[in-house]
Amino acid sequence: MYDLLVQRADVLQIANGVPSVLPQHDIAITDRRIVAIAPDISPGLARETLAADGLLAIPGLINSHSHTAMSLFRGVAEDVPIEEWFNGIIWPLETNLTPEDVYWGTLLGLAEMIEAGVTCVADHYFAMDAIVQAVQESGMRALLAWTIFSGADEHEQLSQARQFVEQWHGAEADRIRVWMGPHSPYTCTPSLLRRVAQTARELGVGIHIHLSETAAQVAQSLATHGCSPVSVARNAGLFDVPALAAHVAHVSPEDIATLAAHGVAVAVTPKTEMKLGIGVAPTLAMREAGVTVALGSDGAASNNTYDILESARLLALLEKLRQSDARCMPIGTTLELATGAGARALQWDGIGVLQVGARADLALVQCATAHTQPLHNPAAALLYSSQAADVDTVIVDGRILMHRRTLLTIDKPRVLREVAARIERLTQRQGERRIATYPEAQASR
Amino acid sequence: MYDLLVQRADVLQIANGVPSVLPQHDIAITDRRIVAIAPDISPGLARETLAADGLLAIPGLINSHSHTAMSLFRGVAEDVPIEEWFNGIIWPLETNLTPEDVYWGTLLGLAEMIEAGVTCVADHYFAMDAIVQAVQESGMRALLAWTIFSGADEHEQLSQARQFVEQWHGAEADRIRVWMGPHSPYTCTPSLLRRVAQTARELGVGIHIHLSETAAQVAQSLATHGCSPVSVARNAGLFDVPALAAHVAHVSPEDIATLAAHGVAVAVTPKTEMKLGIGVAPTLAMREAGVTVALGSDGAASNNTYDILESARLLALLEKLRQSDARCMPIGTTLELATGAGARALQWDGIGVLQVGARADLALVQCATAHTQPLHNPAAALLYSSQAADVDTVIVDGRILMHRRTLLTIDKPRVLREVAARIERLTQRQGERRIATYPEAQASR
Repeated sequence: MYDLLVQRADVLQIANGVPSVLPQHDIAITDRRIVAIAPDISPGLARETLAADGLLAIPGLINSHSHTAMSLFRGVAEDVPIEEWFNGIIWPLETNLTPEDVYWGTLLGLAEMIEAGVTCVADHYFAMDAIVQAVQESGMRALLAWTIFSGADEHEQLSQARQFVEQWHGAEADRIRVWMGPHSPYTCTPSLLRRVAQTARELGVGIHIHLSETAAQVAQSLATHGCSPVSVARNAGLFDVPALAAHVAHVSPEDIATLAAHGVAVAVTPKTEMKLGIGVAPTLAMREAGVTVALGSDGAASNNTYDILESARLLALLEKLRQSDARCMPIGTTLELATGAGARALQWDGIGVLQVGARADLALVQCATAHTQPLHNPAAALLYSSQAADVDTVIVDGRILMHRRTLLTIDKPRVLREVAARIERLTQRQGERRIATYPEAQASR
Repeated sequence: MYDLLVQRADVLQIANGVPSVLPQHDIAITDRRIVAIAPDISPGLARETLAADGLLAIPGLINSHSHTAMSLFRGVAEDVPIEEWFNGIIWPLETNLTPEDVYWGTLLGLAEMIEAGVTCVADHYFAMDAIVQAVQESGMRALLAWTIFSGADEHEQLSQARQFVEQWHGAEADRIRVWMGPHSPYTCTPSLLRRVAQTARELGVGIHIHLSETAAQVAQSLATHGCSPVSVARNAGLFDVPALAAHVAHVSPEDIATLAAHGVAVAVTPKTEMKLGIGVAPTLAMREAGVTVALGSDGAASNNTYDILESARLLALLEKLRQSDARCMPIGTTLELATGAGARALQWDGIGVLQVGARADLALVQCATAHTQPLHNPAAALLYSSQAADVDTVIVDGRILMHRRTLLTIDKPRVLREVAARIERLTQRQGERRIATYPEAQASR
């Protein structure tokens, strides 16, 4: 018996960057995995069926870099440069956060992601105990990393992060994984980075870090360490374990070669990077060098949304413009960044694809809309015309998390109420307190 | 008695680029105009009331450059450069279009626009007799221009366009206006452009044209005419009447000064221009020189959507990146491009604003969503978080065109059926026939 049979979906598959659609196929799911994709599978073989007539089945989208709980600060820091964004607004306000706030903020962000067809998120934040609870309840797949900064309590942070890996890595039948999360080379000393790398090696997990977000960070790194942030990270041993680097907007050809040689994946968050005016990774050059480039949303305080198709669309449009070439970043390649490349970036086998043997992480997307019809090209409709609201149904690990736009694992009205009740307290300033300080030398660029 | 009373909306207003919200205000409408905005207007004074609790009332969005019927070709020409897009795909396929096709394609595009909060469109296409019928029925506000190309029948085209102005300019109580629509300096000879300018002057209307879309067009113009497309247009007298120029991506400082001196407005269509890799107008420089910059969708064959908030978001993100400055194109300024600046570009007084005396063109937007909450900043939520699907209700000229996501003037299921029935015929190639030819010299750039 199948656990679930999705019936008569148009199944989008992407092979070698080329999208194709299997029309009106059934998708059979057993034990969290896709076990058959074929037309006319007998519904008598399934415990549960789900009609998907007229819907496009797509691999669940992968958000490769997020601070999900920052949904709480969506819209508080608009039209300001990065140093003011960090030092003037976000890091002071984040001192207000309790674990309970982080729990509700994460649920809000996960609700938004599920509604947008995202089935897996690489989350980088603090109060991870609260976050993992939200992830468990929501049914979302997640790669979690507890953020570590240098400071007086860095030893405690490191031991807390180690303990978190030991407790949660592989939990929920491997729906939850945990890596180490050093914040960045500009907020962590080289010696702390070395200790983090050592810990990751001992635990057999990877690291998730921010790298080379701005030109000023690179200049600062050259002045302080005599080498780029990419080299600082490599020298600390962070690339000797599986490594996922976010942003990586400002890199030399040598940096790109280093990333490629060590198999370091890059999570580009184009909306945030454009909005803050800090620069967007040279995606084409990285891909040509063999670097895996995936897509992320960053936090909603800079990105405003957790919509990975929007990120994909933005990055393709931007690269076509920057290269003056409409042929670059074709639709299949771009959709792959949001799916298969995300899986490779997180080093998570069996997600990001719709095929037999894969984990049953998928979304069903409505295409009978005024903005997607006529449907000459379903993959183009998905990338360039669809809205998150067109996502009809979402399945993660074989479990239906949203059906016909209704969330089944998250009590959205309650989440919205809890979040609204927190706004006033969360936006009050507490004197000069900040969770960290963005280096002044960079602020003065 | 008021004709319509919108009750308890949060009313977004933008003054000098600064957004503000009047909380829970009523909007009273009489004779197609807003006659009062105040809290607690007595419903007894209104023939009809519309509850807008929790909804953000915004000025109707203005699409300043569109080929609406090209919804029919959404997705047929993806990831191809502009010369192949024109000569290889679009212009051959457009020979298949009958006026009836254009009618249904326009209705489809108008349905999408209304669903996205667009209340006015500047449309540039052929078979305008069919288009005006769709506009009439839909209740949309429109500035129409019948496209003119040079060719053996240019005299007939010109006289047809003149007749169309005479018949329709100011129709439907001034909900429909008509300008002249010479296609571009690369498809119209200078002598034809002069005759178009002369006709517009005689009729007392403006012109809507494509200008300087690509660097190759500028080079071609310099080689052929010894001056830029902007100068060609000015020399032909096109700027002696109200003028709206689309794209205008490649301009010199002298070109910008010319546009400013003649009050020529520019409709930027960032999604198309990025997607085709052809370049995006230097929006900041133009605005600093005093040029009115507005936003358009172009046709769906290149833009894929008719979503003007998406265009606004794209342009702001791109300018912040290009200027390396998060402060440029702030939210209020950006929203103004999609509203008040659109009104100025179309030289249409009384639209693009929510204030007493203005035409009653507005949209009510749902903000109680997982992707917009918490609502720290409603204007930011609108620009950076909302989706077209969040538009709940749309009013044009005091008439409700969409209520709670249901279109009231367009039979959407029938439109989708009619369009689907046309796909096969519309995508068949008819030998070497094209509606025009994109110049070879540009194709070889």
